[in-house]
Amino acid sequence: MRVGLLGGSFNPPHRGHVAMALAVRAGLGLDEVLLIPAARPPHKPGHDAMASPHDRLRMTEAAARAHGLRVSAIELERLGPSYTRDTIAALEAARPGDTFFFIIGADTVDELPTWRDAAALLRRVQFVVVNRPGHDLEANLAVVAARLGEDVAAGLRAHTVTMDAADVSSTAIRRRIHDGVAGWEDDLEPEVARIISEERLYGRDFVTTPATIRGIGAHVGSRVELRGWLYKQRGKGKLAFVHLRDGTGVIQAVATRDQLGEETFARLKGLQQESALKLRGNVRADERAPGGYELDVDDLEVVAPAAADYPIAHVSDQGIDFLLGKRHLWLRSSKQHAVLRVRNEVIKAIRDFFYEREFVLVDAPIFTPAACEGTTNLFEVAYFEDKAYLTQSGQLYMEAAAMAHGKVYCFGPTFRAERSKTRRHLTEFWMVEPEMAWATLEDVMDLAEAFLEAVVARALERCKEELKTLERDTSALERVRRPFPRLTYDEAVKLLHDKGLPFEYGNDLGAPDETAISESFDRPVMIHRWPAAVKAFYMARDAANPALALGVDVIAPEGAGEVIGGGQRSIDLADLERQLEVHKLPREAFEWYLDLRRFGAVPHGGFGLGLERLVAWICGREHVREAIPFPRTIYRKEP
Amino acid sequence: MRVGLLGGSFNPPHRGHVAMALAVRAGLGLDEVLLIPAARPPHKPGHDAMASPHDRLRMTEAAARAHGLRVSAIELERLGPSYTRDTIAALEAARPGDTFFFIIGADTVDELPTWRDAAALLRRVQFVVVNRPGHDLEANLAVVAARLGEDVAAGLRAHTVTMDAADVSSTAIRRRIHDGVAGWEDDLEPEVARIISEERLYGRDFVTTPATIRGIGAHVGSRVELRGWLYKQRGKGKLAFVHLRDGTGVIQAVATRDQLGEETFARLKGLQQESALKLRGNVRADERAPGGYELDVDDLEVVAPAAADYPIAHVSDQGIDFLLGKRHLWLRSSKQHAVLRVRNEVIKAIRDFFYEREFVLVDAPIFTPAACEGTTNLFEVAYFEDKAYLTQSGQLYMEAAAMAHGKVYCFGPTFRAERSKTRRHLTEFWMVEPEMAWATLEDVMDLAEAFLEAVVARALERCKEELKTLERDTSALERVRRPFPRLTYDEAVKLLHDKGLPFEYGNDLGAPDETAISESFDRPVMIHRWPAAVKAFYMARDAANPALALGVDVIAPEGAGEVIGGGQRSIDLADLERQLEVHKLPREAFEWYLDLRRFGAVPHGGFGLGLERLVAWICGREHVREAIPFPRTIYRKEP
Repeated sequence: MRVGLLGGSFNPPHRGHVAMALAVRAGLGLDEVLLIPAARPPHKPGHDAMASPHDRLRMTEAAARAHGLRVSAIELERLGPSYTRDTIAALEAARPGDTFFFIIGADTVDELPTWRDAAALLRRVQFVVVNRPGHDLEANLAVVAARLGEDVAAGLRAHTVTMDAADVSSTAIRRRIHDGVAGWEDDLEPEVARIISEERLYGRDFVTTPATIRGIGAHVGSRVELRGWLYKQRGKGKLAFVHLRDGTGVIQAVATRDQLGEETFARLKGLQQESALKLRGNVRADERAPGGYELDVDDLEVVAPAAADYPIAHVSDQGIDFLLGKRHLWLRSSKQHAVLRVRNEVIKAIRDFFYEREFVLVDAPIFTPAACEGTTNLFEVAYFEDKAYLTQSGQLYMEAAAMAHGKVYCFGPTFRAERSKTRRHLTEFWMVEPEMAWATLEDVMDLAEAFLEAVVARALERCKEELKTLERDTSALERVRRPFPRLTYDEAVKLLHDKGLPFEYGNDLGAPDETAISESFDRPVMIHRWPAAVKAFYMARDAANPALALGVDVIAPEGAGEVIGGGQRSIDLADLERQLEVHKLPREAFEWYLDLRRFGAVPHGGFGLGLERLVAWICGREHVREAIPFPRTIYRKEP
Repeated sequence: MRVGLLGGSFNPPHRGHVAMALAVRAGLGLDEVLLIPAARPPHKPGHDAMASPHDRLRMTEAAARAHGLRVSAIELERLGPSYTRDTIAALEAARPGDTFFFIIGADTVDELPTWRDAAALLRRVQFVVVNRPGHDLEANLAVVAARLGEDVAAGLRAHTVTMDAADVSSTAIRRRIHDGVAGWEDDLEPEVARIISEERLYGRDFVTTPATIRGIGAHVGSRVELRGWLYKQRGKGKLAFVHLRDGTGVIQAVATRDQLGEETFARLKGLQQESALKLRGNVRADERAPGGYELDVDDLEVVAPAAADYPIAHVSDQGIDFLLGKRHLWLRSSKQHAVLRVRNEVIKAIRDFFYEREFVLVDAPIFTPAACEGTTNLFEVAYFEDKAYLTQSGQLYMEAAAMAHGKVYCFGPTFRAERSKTRRHLTEFWMVEPEMAWATLEDVMDLAEAFLEAVVARALERCKEELKTLERDTSALERVRRPFPRLTYDEAVKLLHDKGLPFEYGNDLGAPDETAISESFDRPVMIHRWPAAVKAFYMARDAANPALALGVDVIAPEGAGEVIGGGQRSIDLADLERQLEVHKLPREAFEWYLDLRRFGAVPHGGFGLGLERLVAWICGREHVREAIPFPRTIYRKEP
């Protein structure tokens, strides 16, 4: 049999579809034409106001029945986007004796080169073009000739059927139904119109998937429903500008008394901030609007009116301590919202970075019997009849794990009972700590550099809106590119002295020293090979100068300070035993750690990065407490 | 200018390459031929024994110079895999007046259809085929005709140059060098041979990237270096079978006294378990070998010999408490290693699942002022001059976050000071807790179902080796497919009674009840709508019967028990205030939580899943303590 295939959304099917099918059937002498409703047309990103597959199938069958056409549900029954290539392959397999003719409109011929496997498909199956007076088919064929070959264009030209039918479009029909225009059913089979009326398709109250504000750009010109909370409201008289937030973003919605009616409009005007709403209306692109889109509200549903006394209605008037006390509400403010979305993206970037490089996540324990870097600043927990301490670092555990898994990392909360009140300290913060077997200090520096570059680049790429909300000048972030300058501690000290700073050799770098160094470079700086006395007991020594520890600190620009600290670990059992004594650490608690040197110790190293410092820097926030959802400091453990 | 392009690894460049270039230059009257060393040939998955880009460039320049050819480093300078399409586009842009002819060997013509954008590329740029007597070019052209079009095949046929040169292959040359066969330099330019000698390329001690055991299949027939630890050793006389583990897997390596020499062989035989080694040799596929591959060792380097008394040399002889005391070493055992790799994959699957669905990760705090589900079982921490408690659940915080971000989740450690000693309890465990605004109990059940299906499917797909190591019968896991059976609590009780079990209506389900229910189904079961009295204070009530709470438990099969608990939350302020009293919870500590009901409360819900229970079930391990790297129980907080 010679079988024509006509695909489409059929949302709804109309007189134009039927005319095309009949014209081709007659013109090419086909035995049969199949109408094939698409699951979700792969060439249409949005699928606004799309009736359900079930309803579209019913309507298409009704339209086909009236004209002796047939319907195939093959695409609706398949999951995911449908490609014509797959549909035809499935039909060929199911109906081996038949020859297929795939029907397309002249106006879509120029889109053919974007189809999946277009070149092969068009050479394998004959496509038939339905042309209407007024279409410039030749221009579209020229595109095909240039991109898919002259032979393909010639084949299409030879299989063109011309028909007279007026332009009918599903979009126009849907709009007429929506606006309640009389005669909307003129271009529809009566049975199709009946289904539309019965199922209330495409009308005012017909909304399929609720949209999100972040994805609103795909719905321009369509009617959507947004669900969210009233963020701000202004306007006067018959006009109201409503800022609605839905967790993904904020949009300005425009409501008028005329459109909503007296009562509903008054209700809207009386709503308090944070009232929960559903707004329905058409999406409009508007360059002047914040975010670039506006919603013209035609319907409104109040889900939960908020109480009148929203405590942080005026964030900028409030002190930080008050806001932190209302953190459960402050999270809703646009800047706090943006910071936590950046945090979300940074964390995913970190986990993807290590997963893709085949690091195994090995969560370090929170309860520990002893301290990693000394016993001060530990939180003590009543542990049944005993005591335990909250972890300060998972590193020692990662060393054990690296000998089992090669490359590992942990990423969890760590705790410091520091009485510091600086803008850079929290009692509870998240730390990521990779550790690699068979690694030297240089490998650790290579990893740290690749890591920072990848994470910052991903935040820049995927958090554009958030960084704009935060009014972040991203030029310093854009320069976070490998290679980073690598200075030895000695060179860093010389740099400080050259700048006239009174730094004493042998000390650790203070925050002002870090800032002074970073100001000499346009990107993060790595400082390595430190006096062993200022570094932890487990650091390996530099063979060229045993007074130096093979440690590295990475200093971020813009005064953000140290974001990474790491290095190569000592694998010398006798040296470690000595260092435990020097640092007055309880030998017994570290016996298991010393085991790692007895059984297959290989060169290894890694680093630690404090998440909140990184996020605060990327977001350009001064204080790390905004970079964690519920910050804990010496003064605060609520809410 | 008419310019020929000859790409290749040139590893090393030899007489055959030069002959091809010269034959085409003469045959087509070209002005110039460019040799283009590839960065990493996209059609060669392995790149064993590949000399560095620098060395290959030097050698190619040496070979070209001797014959008036030229070299382009364009592919070496680009990062990532190079596609011919991109290379030609870059050359066309850089040299607008020139016409290019891309040279390929007749033996690779049939691979053309697999090239990136092959159809377009071959129609845009003329390819030239170099044929040698004995090659069946026509058979390869038939493949091209069938897959790319007859016109393409015809173009290639018309641009074929035939030459006589003997078959020379870089692989054969490398093998001769490696085996020390005299005359290895016969097919090389003297200058190329000089570079090879000088840089010691391709010889016994020439190994580029160290391989991993997990990726060893890509290196069959090649010489690699493996770095790892001695896991087991057996054999006698002149033969040793060494099991090497490297963190990614375990491989059997075969060493002979003849190959290694008396001294090295004796050294190997004397090594203790867990000694760190580098083994070099050829990879061989062997169906009988565990993992399917073996290494024929030709060289050995002892990095760190292990002490003689490895405490857990015989894992199966040891009690669980002894092994947990040596957890830092037990991690290395193959089953423990496999469990933690599954854990790693499950965690990534969970995070990917939520990220892809646009849930925002909002980490809940660890330090909390009060308890979520009652004050018992809390760990108390000395918090400066005050007290804090370690979190039992992030849910209440997630409810706050959902009103700010719409869809959120937290995933971190949680703590229960339970004195339970069952195989299902830990004092410290990881919990994932999604929460959605605008969600009902049914939405929560849909999410839980999709979540479990996705995570289990990913573990099955990506942890095949690990599940084999664990001897896990995966048939029950393969049946974790939506839809799961949904029983009301009432239906579940009826089922228990029908089975003759003496269950009292109104009670919570015990482990034996859960097992009895799950045995009636082939996949996880969801039990919903529970007597409110057995559920937490924040659960929403069923409008149809306010004695029921809108909660759901998901029971895993195989006696694994409850893995998920969740539901819809109450948004009725008065009801919540009453429930706090009924549950004797301190009102003041929950004021912030009540705020969420005052300001825009919308229907919402979510669930919690204990990671270790899920991982233990997937791995078929009886006790959850093996599903976390460093388990903490009432008796254990070390190492």
